[in-house]
Amino acid sequence: MTFFRTFLSTIADAGRELLDVHQGRNAKSGDVKALCSDLITQKGEALGTALALAVVEAYQSYDAAQKLSFFKMLLTDFDVDEAALNAAIAAYQKAPGPLAAQKVGMGAESLRQRVIRGVNMAPGGTRAVINMREDLLDMVRDESSLEAVDADFAHLLSSWFNRGFLELRRVDWSTPANVLEKLITYEAVHEIRDWEDLRRRLDADRRCYAFFHPALPDEPLIFVEVALVKGLSGSVQELLDDTLPRISADSADTAIFYSISNCQKGLRGISFGNFLIKQVVSELRAELSNLNTFSTLSPVPGFMRWLQSVRNRSDEAKKVLDILDGQDWLNDPDLQDQLQLPITQLCAHYLVNEKRKGRPLDAVAKFHLGNGAGLERINWLGDVSAKGVGESASLLVNYKYDLAKIETHHEAYANEGIVAHSKRIAKLLDEPLVFTES
Amino acid sequence: MTFFRTFLSTIADAGRELLDVHQGRNAKSGDVKALCSDLITQKGEALGTALALAVVEAYQSYDAAQKLSFFKMLLTDFDVDEAALNAAIAAYQKAPGPLAAQKVGMGAESLRQRVIRGVNMAPGGTRAVINMREDLLDMVRDESSLEAVDADFAHLLSSWFNRGFLELRRVDWSTPANVLEKLITYEAVHEIRDWEDLRRRLDADRRCYAFFHPALPDEPLIFVEVALVKGLSGSVQELLDDTLPRISADSADTAIFYSISNCQKGLRGISFGNFLIKQVVSELRAELSNLNTFSTLSPVPGFMRWLQSVRNRSDEAKKVLDILDGQDWLNDPDLQDQLQLPITQLCAHYLVNEKRKGRPLDAVAKFHLGNGAGLERINWLGDVSAKGVGESASLLVNYKYDLAKIETHHEAYANEGIVAHSKRIAKLLDEPLVFTES
Amino acid sequence: MTFFRTFLSTIADAGRELLDVHQGRNAKSGDVKALCSDLITQKGEALGTALALAVVEAYQSYDAAQKLSFFKMLLTDFDVDEAALNAAIAAYQKAPGPLAAQKVGMGAESLRQRVIRGVNMAPGGTRAVINMREDLLDMVRDESSLEAVDADFAHLLSSWFNRGFLELRRVDWSTPANVLEKLITYEAVHEIRDWEDLRRRLDADRRCYAFFHPALPDEPLIFVEVALVKGLSGSVQELLDDTLPRISADSADTAIFYSISNCQKGLRGISFGNFLIKQVVSELRAELSNLNTFSTLSPVPGFMRWLQSVRNRSDEAKKVLDILDGQDWLNDPDLQDQLQLPITQLCAHYLVNEKRKGRPLDAVAKFHLGNGAGLERINWLGDVSAKGVGESASLLVNYKYDLAKIETHHEAYANEGIVAHSKRIAKLLDEPLVFTES
Amino acid sequence: MTFFRTFLSTIADAGRELLDVHQGRNAKSGDVKALCSDLITQKGEALGTALALAVVEAYQSYDAAQKLSFFKMLLTDFDVDEAALNAAIAAYQKAPGPLAAQKVGMGAESLRQRVIRGVNMAPGGTRAVINMREDLLDMVRDESSLEAVDADFAHLLSSWFNRGFLELRRVDWSTPANVLEKLITYEAVHEIRDWEDLRRRLDADRRCYAFFHPALPDEPLIFVEVALVKGLSGSVQELLDDTLPRISADSADTAIFYSISNCQKGLRGISFGNFLIKQVVSELRAELSNLNTFSTLSPVPGFMRWLQSVRNRSDEAKKVLDILDGQDWLNDPDLQDQLQLPITQLCAHYLVNEKRKGRPLDAVAKFHLGNGAGLERINWLGDVSAKGVGESASLLVNYKYDLAKIETHHEAYANEGIVAHSKRIAKLLDEPLVFTES
Repeated sequence: MTFFRTFLSTIADAGRELLDVHQGRNAKSGDVKALCSDLITQKGEALGTALALAVVEAYQSYDAAQKLSFFKMLLTDFDVDEAALNAAIAAYQKAPGPLAAQKVGMGAESLRQRVIRGVNMAPGGTRAVINMREDLLDMVRDESSLEAVDADFAHLLSSWFNRGFLELRRVDWSTPANVLEKLITYEAVHEIRDWEDLRRRLDADRRCYAFFHPALPDEPLIFVEVALVKGLSGSVQELLDDTLPRISADSADTAIFYSISNCQKGLRGISFGNFLIKQVVSELRAELSNLNTFSTLSPVPGFMRWLQSVRNRSDEAKKVLDILDGQDWLNDPDLQDQLQLPITQLCAHYLVNEKRKGRPLDAVAKFHLGNGAGLERINWLGDVSAKGVGESASLLVNYKYDLAKIETHHEAYANEGIVAHSKRIAKLLDEPLVFTES
Repeated sequence: MTFFRTFLSTIADAGRELLDVHQGRNAKSGDVKALCSDLITQKGEALGTALALAVVEAYQSYDAAQKLSFFKMLLTDFDVDEAALNAAIAAYQKAPGPLAAQKVGMGAESLRQRVIRGVNMAPGGTRAVINMREDLLDMVRDESSLEAVDADFAHLLSSWFNRGFLELRRVDWSTPANVLEKLITYEAVHEIRDWEDLRRRLDADRRCYAFFHPALPDEPLIFVEVALVKGLSGSVQELLDDTLPRISADSADTAIFYSISNCQKGLRGISFGNFLIKQVVSELRAELSNLNTFSTLSPVPGFMRWLQSVRNRSDEAKKVLDILDGQDWLNDPDLQDQLQLPITQLCAHYLVNEKRKGRPLDAVAKFHLGNGAGLERINWLGDVSAKGVGESASLLVNYKYDLAKIETHHEAYANEGIVAHSKRIAKLLDEPLVFTES
Repeated sequence: MTFFRTFLSTIADAGRELLDVHQGRNAKSGDVKALCSDLITQKGEALGTALALAVVEAYQSYDAAQKLSFFKMLLTDFDVDEAALNAAIAAYQKAPGPLAAQKVGMGAESLRQRVIRGVNMAPGGTRAVINMREDLLDMVRDESSLEAVDADFAHLLSSWFNRGFLELRRVDWSTPANVLEKLITYEAVHEIRDWEDLRRRLDADRRCYAFFHPALPDEPLIFVEVALVKGLSGSVQELLDDTLPRISADSADTAIFYSISNCQKGLRGISFGNFLIKQVVSELRAELSNLNTFSTLSPVPGFMRWLQSVRNRSDEAKKVLDILDGQDWLNDPDLQDQLQLPITQLCAHYLVNEKRKGRPLDAVAKFHLGNGAGLERINWLGDVSAKGVGESASLLVNYKYDLAKIETHHEAYANEGIVAHSKRIAKLLDEPLVFTES
Repeated sequence: MTFFRTFLSTIADAGRELLDVHQGRNAKSGDVKALCSDLITQKGEALGTALALAVVEAYQSYDAAQKLSFFKMLLTDFDVDEAALNAAIAAYQKAPGPLAAQKVGMGAESLRQRVIRGVNMAPGGTRAVINMREDLLDMVRDESSLEAVDADFAHLLSSWFNRGFLELRRVDWSTPANVLEKLITYEAVHEIRDWEDLRRRLDADRRCYAFFHPALPDEPLIFVEVALVKGLSGSVQELLDDTLPRISADSADTAIFYSISNCQKGLRGISFGNFLIKQVVSELRAELSNLNTFSTLSPVPGFMRWLQSVRNRSDEAKKVLDILDGQDWLNDPDLQDQLQLPITQLCAHYLVNEKRKGRPLDAVAKFHLGNGAGLERINWLGDVSAKGVGESASLLVNYKYDLAKIETHHEAYANEGIVAHSKRIAKLLDEPLVFTES
């Protein structure tokens, strides 16, 4: 680590020296366009990482407007060489074949990609590229022309963050604080209130694993929080309750994946979660032979939205919503009893049957079912936080990962859109349908 | 490290388990084509790294003929989707633009690339991809149709081994033996005879640096050997002579880069050397402020071949070669005196003036001059080994790296083909030209 | 680390197995006295670490009364072998000489020491020995007969924690959380409120260093907190104020050691602080060449107690105390102005002239002056916390560490009890003495 | 590591600076006696590690005669304070008790011990102390008065190298070369010829473990070489034969400890071997559950000497020796057949029955039997090297470590001198005694 820091500062010094020479000779100093041009010509090779560093530092000094100009410059001035592309296409059309097609591919590659590859060479370059994309994603919303720029960033990042380059690391209380604080920052499902809360989540009966990329050694890309328990858990408040007694990891039979969070906005769209869960299942099985069940405890973030959307078409939905919206059911055990069955049935229906293009409406369901998990149980009053109630009507769902069934589940899901589910769920669906579309 | 090993074996176990299930359900087990197909469909995502591992293990079990079939399969069955490419081209031609061009690029990307990315996901996958390409490079010589396959490997490896992902590490006598033995194996310039010889090269007045990639933690990609000396060195036998007195690193003023070797055949064509030398110059300057000269001591591997080629056109070349070929000059100081000036002049001429397409004929000269180094000195009797005499007529050349001049040198070279050289070399060229083309 | 944990659990397993066998054969199982006896005979060698582990585990299960019995047993049953000692004395008196004296030494060594050495062999044994001594120190207060037991613990720990075995490590925000939390726990001078407060103390313009012992890799023994500032600091509230602007470490000229805390009660009396401060001065000078002043910002914990003790003998002390005790001076700038000079003079007098056995009364002064530091400045309103006001009347003192003067200072102090002090302090003392002993 | 080196050089620099000041003021500079005196007074505390470093550097510059003077100075000038010792004795005799006895102990402790503790504080101090003792051990042979000095070194080193401070580490081909070369240097039983030979001993079916002390991170203290095999091995030449087929570690049932070597002469008399073997047995059992037998393959270094000593008293010994001494039996299978039984019987007798003070004559036997191992098998032609034939008549012995029997074996051995042995050995002893004392 010490070495690495020295190395970075040394390379930066060397960079600066080479660059001072470069800029001393070049009145265009500070002209980022010129720097980017140099970066992708032979000069880029000769000046090593100095030019890349200059681009990174220039970018870091920019305000929002300058960043927008930078990306527009990449769009306009470092686009595809149309003449070359057209020539490659003509050659391919005249004499098709693998090599001719490859030349089309090369011709269609924008100069931007070479600029981005060049920037990555700077010390801290990978971090810089990810930060650029994070900014860019914000701008694309208003400037859809920048989509082409984003596509180039996404293409390269996706190749660089191939699963084969990621390291799974266990995160615990002996992990450096600068890594741990990122868990607090990025936890997206069940907020980590403070360091005490974090510490509870890293106790002996808990596990936390994250993927790291060697170019970002202190930055988790994605992490999952796991509770070791006896039997399936249905309530996240119970899991996070610091006052409840703990069990020894050796006596647990079930691992509950109760939270999974991405940390790098700049890597949006590059999926790690499916690898992470399966890898952690393997790790846990290797460490604790007593574990026999691996399940998530997941929100149903689209449930309330869907319920509202069918209010006018479903008597049951309407009845349920009238209570949910109009009464203080969270403090009324009788109302809770009244709600439990119909709302659970409605949720089962929502998760198993409600689809768009053959896939579940619910994003979380889509993710786990697409990974080959099965819908195991729906838990009433599983998350009574404001967010849990507002989005999921307090429901939390167990998606079960059974390595022996992952492929069959996945295949049935991929080919026929079938949502694998337990007998318990089947029974909910079989019973007199409380939900009746009108 | 321990963790990493555990991790690999765990992932392999998980892989195997998922795969057993997969293969149990799939009579096509062992059908690598099917595995590769699965790898690039949704199934690849669901089965994680298991499929990738299966492909790697299948490949590792192959003999040469099976490997050839494997690559031919990649060529034929995982080529570009022509229909999709043609459609993308048609759309682009109808309405050109950055996104349309990108779609052409995607259409022109062969399925092979996705297979290779998939294979990389396996534990040890990067190693496997490099090994595949090493095999492939041997086959391409006889099977030029495989060039398209090689181009895909080269494209991905080049992106993955971007300078930004490489780590510079100093290699010394406290480096693990499994890394050190690779220096012995891969030293390509001046053979390392045994561990004692290696140890001498890692002494306190020596330095060795290598680039590593995080996915190959024990495998140097390229390494450079440096001697710390007083004044320019002209003889490699002197540098490697274990009986000569040593100096303290603090008292040296010159760093001699006397050997630079690539270690991974499978990464052929991906250039690290230019980055390595400049980075090491920076490292050494940071460590030892007394150093003021950084220079190579390099062979002239094409010199004798060129000299023979001009024998009939040059009286001087003929005279020189008559002695070199016909007499025992290595043991005759008088003959050596006679040879020194004309042969040095011939070499200066060869390096400075003899070009093809505006670049020096000599591969080593081309490399260092392209990096912005300058031709400093030519050393008679610099390498009297059989190889040194046979290829370079015993000459060794100092190419000097002066950070302050690298850009000007590079630019003059790149734009006008000018070979930067010292006054000493200029004087050799200015003196009555011993070499006269007939 | 992973390896180490595995190692500990393995050794523990082996221990347990050997011990099961041992105890199976031995009805006295659970009899700690028997275990201790076995530990110091040949059996100790044969059963490796198993017996040691058994003693540790037995001790860990004890309540306070049992622990007391344990130490009394050590006192009574594992004392010196009087017969052997008397024989060695007789032999020495008959024929004195180095070897005879050594035999007296060996004869005077209690069996306890061998038991403690034996316990140290257990996995985690060093931790266990320190914990035992921590308990013991509490008991010695009431049971002075246990002093002999404590002396044996102290003797061995002092030898084991020789400066040569300690590692200095910088502690920063990338340090593992389980180490950082110990800073929060053990900070003894200026309480660390929470993780945010801690983080401020580890910022780029701060430094924290600690000594570690290899047998306690996650446990700081002592740590010092340093602020990098411009000019001498006089107020700790200012140093800890998170809202004040920060400076870059490169622009600081002064390092302020504002807190130094011991972490291991069980190592009481074994001094590390003098080594720590000098070592950190060296580290900082090597890292930041711009630093030219190294000074503490220290409390005067005995000042108010002393002031009260001379109230009746000194008019000035009485006047000052009448204000301090009776009025709301902390909120009254006029009173503060009135107090500043006399109270600072009184403190200068207290620190420079008030001694017991030739050494300053004040414990903190004694520590730094004994290390060769000099008394540089006394700061009014330096620490306005309740503790600062109650003990030190809000004063904080700068003791300056000047490597070039450490030896002269130390010698004058050691030989003649002279308190080295700055001109500023001398002026305070020279001015009409506000303090007049009555 | 980098940090550690920086740390050492920093501390050395600081040391030097403090010392320059010290010596500038002290005309006695270079007077090691004065330095040692300072080291054990308060000055030692004030000057930190500077004085210690000065002593170490002075010592390192000494030739043999100066070293001898140094140790004599320690003997004479830093001996026990006789007056203090006599006073402590008098007080003890007047009023015996634990504290009084302790004071005798303190009085009997020579000033040398404090000097040695002081030297240990220098950077590299532990290494320096061990090196001093290594020199001292050579001198003690001729200068027996130095025994008292050696006893002080031994006492402190023994305390510092307590088992609780040692780390067991596996050594393999990924271990740093500077550690591995020490195996080649220190292998004391079966010479390691070169790096290829070493590599064979670190293969996948081999294990090597060593104890390290944190103060000597690159220096093994003792190491053991293990072969994983099927069934008991009887021949070391077979084990070391690189041409024989290897087995996978997973398929082995037996671990053969075929070599155990101490590395630090300066730690002579401080026993690690018994801990090492048992610890490695535990490690191997944890790693490879298929192992069920743990045994040495050991020389019988005293056998030939003993055989010669009984030549005149035993017809059998005489007959055997007549062949061994007079004929080329190593190349004569018939003679070998003739020798095998009587020589094996003689060896069994030698190991089981021949004792001095109730312990086996043979040093290796004494070591393993004292550890609780049992005599399992005697192998004819087990080591046909010159050394093996010369000392052990080619015999190698298996001592078996069975954790379940270690305590009983040890106890029978310790209390009654019984040599635990297998039925096979018992049979050898029961058969008509070929050895007949005359």
